Amino acid sequence: MSQFWSPAVRALTPYVPGEQPREKLIKLNTNENPYPPAPGVAEVLREYAIDRLRLYPDPGAHALREAIARHHDVAVEQVFVGNGSDEVLALAFKAFFERDEALAVPTISYSFYPVYCDFYGITMNRLPLTEALEVDLDAFPTDSGGVVFANPNAPTGHAHSREAIAGLLERYTERVVLVDEAYVDFGGESVVPLLARFPNLLVTGTFSKSRSLAGLRIGYAIGSPELIDGLNRVKDSFNSYPLDSIAIAAGVAAMQDDEHFRACCNAVIATRERTRAALEQADIQVLPSCTNFLFVRPRSIDAEALFTGLRERGILVRFFDKPSLNQFLRISIGTDDEMDQLIDAIYAMTGVNA
Amino acid sequence: MSQFWSPAVRALTPYVPGEQPREKLIKLNTNENPYPPAPGVAEVLREYAIDRLRLYPDPGAHALREAIARHHDVAVEQVFVGNGSDEVLALAFKAFFERDEALAVPTISYSFYPVYCDFYGITMNRLPLTEALEVDLDAFPTDSGGVVFANPNAPTGHAHSREAIAGLLERYTERVVLVDEAYVDFGGESVVPLLARFPNLLVTGTFSKSRSLAGLRIGYAIGSPELIDGLNRVKDSFNSYPLDSIAIAAGVAAMQDDEHFRACCNAVIATRERTRAALEQADIQVLPSCTNFLFVRPRSIDAEALFTGLRERGILVRFFDKPSLNQFLRISIGTDDEMDQLIDAIYAMTGVNA
Repeated sequence: MSQFWSPAVRALTPYVPGEQPREKLIKLNTNENPYPPAPGVAEVLREYAIDRLRLYPDPGAHALREAIARHHDVAVEQVFVGNGSDEVLALAFKAFFERDEALAVPTISYSFYPVYCDFYGITMNRLPLTEALEVDLDAFPTDSGGVVFANPNAPTGHAHSREAIAGLLERYTERVVLVDEAYVDFGGESVVPLLARFPNLLVTGTFSKSRSLAGLRIGYAIGSPELIDGLNRVKDSFNSYPLDSIAIAAGVAAMQDDEHFRACCNAVIATRERTRAALEQADIQVLPSCTNFLFVRPRSIDAEALFTGLRERGILVRFFDKPSLNQFLRISIGTDDEMDQLIDAIYAMTGVNA
Repeated sequence: MSQFWSPAVRALTPYVPGEQPREKLIKLNTNENPYPPAPGVAEVLREYAIDRLRLYPDPGAHALREAIARHHDVAVEQVFVGNGSDEVLALAFKAFFERDEALAVPTISYSFYPVYCDFYGITMNRLPLTEALEVDLDAFPTDSGGVVFANPNAPTGHAHSREAIAGLLERYTERVVLVDEAYVDFGGESVVPLLARFPNLLVTGTFSKSRSLAGLRIGYAIGSPELIDGLNRVKDSFNSYPLDSIAIAAGVAAMQDDEHFRACCNAVIATRERTRAALEQADIQVLPSCTNFLFVRPRSIDAEALFTGLRERGILVRFFDKPSLNQFLRISIGTDDEMDQLIDAIYAMTGVNA
């Protein structure tokens, strides 16, 4: 602790991102996409006029917002972009949730949400999942200062239907409901079509998963123009140009290639389902997943021991050292070959004969 | 105003960045560098392995911090990087200045400082410049919650010597002194060598000016390891990966090319001094500048009229519509050819015979 740190900063508990190992490992720990981004991204890099980099980017990132708006069939005024969906979420918490009333958050969801609350001094009302480890939509109190959850949820992988979320929005109208759709393209149902009915709905998305661009830091939010205005006020009070010129251009190329996008998502889904079946044979409980990861509970071996054993075999998955999660592992879906190596390693450790 | 916005956000007054026009203008309004970045940056783009973009960047941006550390002759633990120096400043205000005591800020300096104070609810003690429009180093009260100023200052262009700032640091030791060196490479004297003596000194820098990379959003801070730790705590509570993989790689290439860097800075300085002499002939007061811009006060024509007239002639400079600044224009240094067109236009408007 330094005397120079401000009091609030001494009390912060920062988010811990998944390890980015320097050694060569099969990396199934941070839900990256195993396939490369759309070929148009390579073209953007090759053909980028280098001397344009001396100029500031378009602070409104208009071209990228337009590409996102077209894909989601909304108006460009309904789209906000930022430096990864993490930054979009950080700005949204300030814009909508910095209030006296507590923010309603599931106990198990994206672990950055409590960190943002800490950052802004927002009180949380943490609501347990159902016994089936699903977000309990009926539990959110109507006097909350806002509601936030991921759908599909992380790290559990379960997704509610659009109509189930419409039910929440029908009874919760005073404050913002933020639905984080980072993983929706792998089998979830986006709630973007509900925007026409609910001006308090904000949906966030990312290019880091289904668009294979985690390295370029592109996230977005879609909502009513009044919510987007609020986000812009906060962004312009913090950092005017969070997306660089190359990220903007590459993001457009990635968003326009629908065929590549669908092929990659389908490949991930097929590998996921095959992996699920194989893991179940090794006496591992595998939760249903609408994402690019599996949330699994080994029955015949301790989760942490499995994590450590896999790491020794050169395979990195995610273990959460918290009482509510330490019986589980989260395994990102890699290539078929990577998953075969994972399955072989698990079979070897659990004594299953493939 | 929306019912969904949080109370603090309704009260925000966001920063207004300089205009990024869509039409073709000679753009001397946002202090961009007229020369392209180091040739190594083009190589990075051409040779970047596109399928690495599916992976998250190194959250610690180690390679870039190392390149910056080498250039400034400090340890890598003394370097923090962020999404432009704007983001670095935004995080530093949280880390060090969110306190009960007021932050000491010159009345005229980078106009984002008051916006950050607004964002975090930090009280400001605004201290007037001297009559010569210099930051008054003796005026900062020792009981301030922190001190921040740009050196060289913006938009005035004046720079204090390293030893003058050492004098401030000798008497002000309890809280952080943040010296924003965005423009220092154009003739200022960096205070980085003072870090060995003063653990409360934080120096920020940017790749947007002297490194010609405004489009890639790279900023940094250099300070004692305990200050850098404080910044990391805040960063990791807001956005873990603010610099994308390409910005990291391109930043390394830009930082390593010392020859290109010096040649560009020297060219800007030579053009600046030639432009200064030419403008003085048109009955324009030109403040001494250690930056890549000139802060000028036309005597025979109203500043706003000159701004408007230049824009009609296709030349965009910066006019600040505030009582304390509206007699001045800030003119970025462009290429020699661009400055010749500026000078011709001003001569035509003021009736000077070149």
